[in-house]
Amino acid sequence: MNYFNTMERENTYRHILKWGDKREEEVGYHMADLIKAKFGLTDNDFREKYLPGLETVTLEKPSLLKPRQLEFLSDVCGSENILTDDLSRARYSCGKFYGELLDLRLKHVPDPPDAVVSPRSHDEVVKIIGFCNEEKIAIIPAGGQSSVTGALRAPHGGIALDLTKYLNRILKINSVNKTVTVEAGIFGPALEEELNRHGYSCGHFPQSFEYSTVGGWISARGAGQASTGYGKIEDMVVALKAVTPAGVIETRDFPRTAQGWDIFRLFAGAEGTLGVLTEATLHIFNHAPLNTTSAAFIFRSFGQAVEAMRTVMQSEYGKPHLFRISDPSETDVAFTTSGFDGTLADKVLQMLGFRRGNCCLMFVAVEGEKAYARFVLKKIKKTARAGKGMFIGSGPVRKWLAQRYSSAYMRDPLMDLGIMTDTLETAVTWENLMQVWQAAHDYVNRRPKAFLMIHISHVYENGANLYFTFLSPMERGNEQQDFIQFHRGLVDTIVENGGSISHHHGVGRALAPWMEGHLGKNSIDLMQAVKRHLDPNNIMNPGGTLGLK
Amino acid sequence: MNYFNTMERENTYRHILKWGDKREEEVGYHMADLIKAKFGLTDNDFREKYLPGLETVTLEKPSLLKPRQLEFLSDVCGSENILTDDLSRARYSCGKFYGELLDLRLKHVPDPPDAVVSPRSHDEVVKIIGFCNEEKIAIIPAGGQSSVTGALRAPHGGIALDLTKYLNRILKINSVNKTVTVEAGIFGPALEEELNRHGYSCGHFPQSFEYSTVGGWISARGAGQASTGYGKIEDMVVALKAVTPAGVIETRDFPRTAQGWDIFRLFAGAEGTLGVLTEATLHIFNHAPLNTTSAAFIFRSFGQAVEAMRTVMQSEYGKPHLFRISDPSETDVAFTTSGFDGTLADKVLQMLGFRRGNCCLMFVAVEGEKAYARFVLKKIKKTARAGKGMFIGSGPVRKWLAQRYSSAYMRDPLMDLGIMTDTLETAVTWENLMQVWQAAHDYVNRRPKAFLMIHISHVYENGANLYFTFLSPMERGNEQQDFIQFHRGLVDTIVENGGSISHHHGVGRALAPWMEGHLGKNSIDLMQAVKRHLDPNNIMNPGGTLGLK
Repeated sequence: MNYFNTMERENTYRHILKWGDKREEEVGYHMADLIKAKFGLTDNDFREKYLPGLETVTLEKPSLLKPRQLEFLSDVCGSENILTDDLSRARYSCGKFYGELLDLRLKHVPDPPDAVVSPRSHDEVVKIIGFCNEEKIAIIPAGGQSSVTGALRAPHGGIALDLTKYLNRILKINSVNKTVTVEAGIFGPALEEELNRHGYSCGHFPQSFEYSTVGGWISARGAGQASTGYGKIEDMVVALKAVTPAGVIETRDFPRTAQGWDIFRLFAGAEGTLGVLTEATLHIFNHAPLNTTSAAFIFRSFGQAVEAMRTVMQSEYGKPHLFRISDPSETDVAFTTSGFDGTLADKVLQMLGFRRGNCCLMFVAVEGEKAYARFVLKKIKKTARAGKGMFIGSGPVRKWLAQRYSSAYMRDPLMDLGIMTDTLETAVTWENLMQVWQAAHDYVNRRPKAFLMIHISHVYENGANLYFTFLSPMERGNEQQDFIQFHRGLVDTIVENGGSISHHHGVGRALAPWMEGHLGKNSIDLMQAVKRHLDPNNIMNPGGTLGLK
Repeated sequence: MNYFNTMERENTYRHILKWGDKREEEVGYHMADLIKAKFGLTDNDFREKYLPGLETVTLEKPSLLKPRQLEFLSDVCGSENILTDDLSRARYSCGKFYGELLDLRLKHVPDPPDAVVSPRSHDEVVKIIGFCNEEKIAIIPAGGQSSVTGALRAPHGGIALDLTKYLNRILKINSVNKTVTVEAGIFGPALEEELNRHGYSCGHFPQSFEYSTVGGWISARGAGQASTGYGKIEDMVVALKAVTPAGVIETRDFPRTAQGWDIFRLFAGAEGTLGVLTEATLHIFNHAPLNTTSAAFIFRSFGQAVEAMRTVMQSEYGKPHLFRISDPSETDVAFTTSGFDGTLADKVLQMLGFRRGNCCLMFVAVEGEKAYARFVLKKIKKTARAGKGMFIGSGPVRKWLAQRYSSAYMRDPLMDLGIMTDTLETAVTWENLMQVWQAAHDYVNRRPKAFLMIHISHVYENGANLYFTFLSPMERGNEQQDFIQFHRGLVDTIVENGGSISHHHGVGRALAPWMEGHLGKNSIDLMQAVKRHLDPNNIMNPGGTLGLK
């Protein structure tokens, strides 16, 4: 199953749509078998890539910036930091939302910005925003372009403001306050490596870690894989600096205050609609990987696993940092694709009543001080055991951690096979969790040849997230509409059964239509009022992000 | 030192100004000695109360509500729930800010509302706000009236909206989600007692606990004595319901989301300027008092104690729930007033280098699961020892907990002695903490016969609060101006040296003048825009609260 190197040329749609380091991923042997069985594919389907996007990128929409405007921008940032070529504009026209990847494969770039501009400093950002506000030029703040919600499109054209080229420095590691101050365009690995050298960790490891920035984390309110212990990004933010059309807002690094409501929180989740984040101060954590303890468990049912998880979170003996449950369908895939089927261990598990299609894996890792990590893990083991979970060693967790960012790479080869695959996620109280889980499965099961895996990966005292990964063969020739309809039905199902629109992906434009119904008109009107004040000319990521006008 | 029962009549200024349960408190024997020594008072000063406020309350300002308006209110709430008598209006004209208590003693009620109205339901609140918005009648939401920032005055008259009479029920204890939903007017003890019966605790125990409400806790962004473990009230809020002139805002109880910024957070710290909170859902905690472990330590200097405290908070082995340091001056008073001076233990401590004027007490209590509480306490003991602290048993902490709400009762007898006494508090990063602490002492020391005690009582990874209690004889005949000037200088000192305006008292009108300089004009303008949207006619707690127009 090795064909040809599709990555030769850098000016193709494929170059833009590929996740991450551009290495070509392929569907593994066991996974390929599973897909063939589930969706009735044959070896033939594996021979040629479907809609590979190998054509050279060309845009229909010309850049509409006037020579005078480009001149101003060049004067501010240097002409080498203003890009208006088709490839650059296409690259900054989207994130990694399935609908966008499909567009690229279909040679469709509906919403390119007019230019990509890379300011060299906070002050240059201030000048650009001031100018664009006067000229009514849209600004889309740009980080790692890993958004999966259509938040980065430029339906009004304008400028993609790239913060990663220059505004990517660590300004201060403060070991007294245990905080770091960074520029917003810094990528995860650059931050983490420097923190590690000082004995710290950022504690925030989203699936997109390798290709996302601090500014993006905050703007979309992301969550890392260890968020159960370290919190979501909004829990880590201590202070930030944002440039808005109404001026610079800079908050301070007090641990907590009671001086009105927190201003910085308006920018956590604003998705670029209020201004451009240029700096942030974050909590950091001790980097002591050798202290980490971990354990995997297997439960006979999803309900039992969830009940044990809830008990852990409500017992007040400390919390795990990584805490996951794969539901029966995800557990089944994990077993099958790891070559577990039919092994002796497999047979023993079945004999013990851990039946495939019912049984669930739970992964736990506790970090922090050495004795603490051991203490909490021991407690969790006891709770899991009391909840009828069986400890199956720490190996599976260590193995999972070793490939923790890999699943993001899997979408491209699946789409190459003509398989529609996307993820959705929700936050839900314990009370509603089983209902949302069941309803989502019921919904997906109604589509012939569709498959849904669900896991829990961010856990709280009062509830958790549910993370949905669905796969189904594309409806060839009607890929986009088919996806939109199927996606809409799944979101409806989640929301109607008591889930939130999003737990950590954000809203963007893909989920914007649900906002008013979900939050209520008065809340949306309030959000709109905040935007109107900070961005009276609606230049900040305009065109529907967050359901705002 | 027993004179006469000043509490006979209920219609006096004294009846309004007295803290709490109206029992007469007196300055204890050791404290009296200390005060005599510090401020040069004699037994003579103890014979008669200064400005006791025993006169009958009479207001100069008549109620300005029109008969038509009163009629509407009566129709909505029932006439028995509309009070316009002088005593009621005076009672709801202020909180427990020192300047207000002084006013009452001086028979001065500058800002009474026109009426006190007690709605019987959320729907009645909606009707009242709608009517008042049309009629441009000010509304001041009223809970336990324990504000110490002048947040409850009614400079524009209008209605004090009392939520405690009817809107005081527990709506649901949700043991699956581990949350409670209450009406905003419920007092601390009523909430805690009912939760205890179900095996839970609210975890929020401010000094004002006995006489403050959930709505007030959230509106002023309060912190309880165990906030280091349980968080501030804004960390406990899961969802809330607020009535604003622009409509009802109701948020949902998802554990976390990424659907724009959190709307509910705008009401945490809004101090009634945006609307009236009618309901809130809060996290609750396991009630297991027998699990609590505690320890007291003594350190040779404030700096050493702070350093040990910081190490505890940054070690990632779990956190204490109660965590306090009394600075050398507060420690000195604690020793003296408890009759410790000259005891054998006192001599031993001095011999060991714990010198009075330098040495500091640290109090720790850890709650939660039994083994967890023991584990964390053991770790803290080790850290304290390594930081040169000496463990002095758990008795002092247990003793402190037994009288945890008593210091609020002490202000009245001190003012009866003609002593000006008020508290201020700030949040500060570890980096700036010693500087703020030193500067505050230097400032107070410049006033002859003034005395400042400072403690830390709410602790975070990146910093802590500082809590200031100052005492000095009133400048008789010029009490109010003298206080205002002295207070202003202390706030200036705190802010100039890197402290926040407030950590948990809130801003009210007393600290409003610092808001714009402290937060920056752009942040205040943003807050003002939020207010303008929700309260276009400026009826919600108008007249300067939070520095808003």
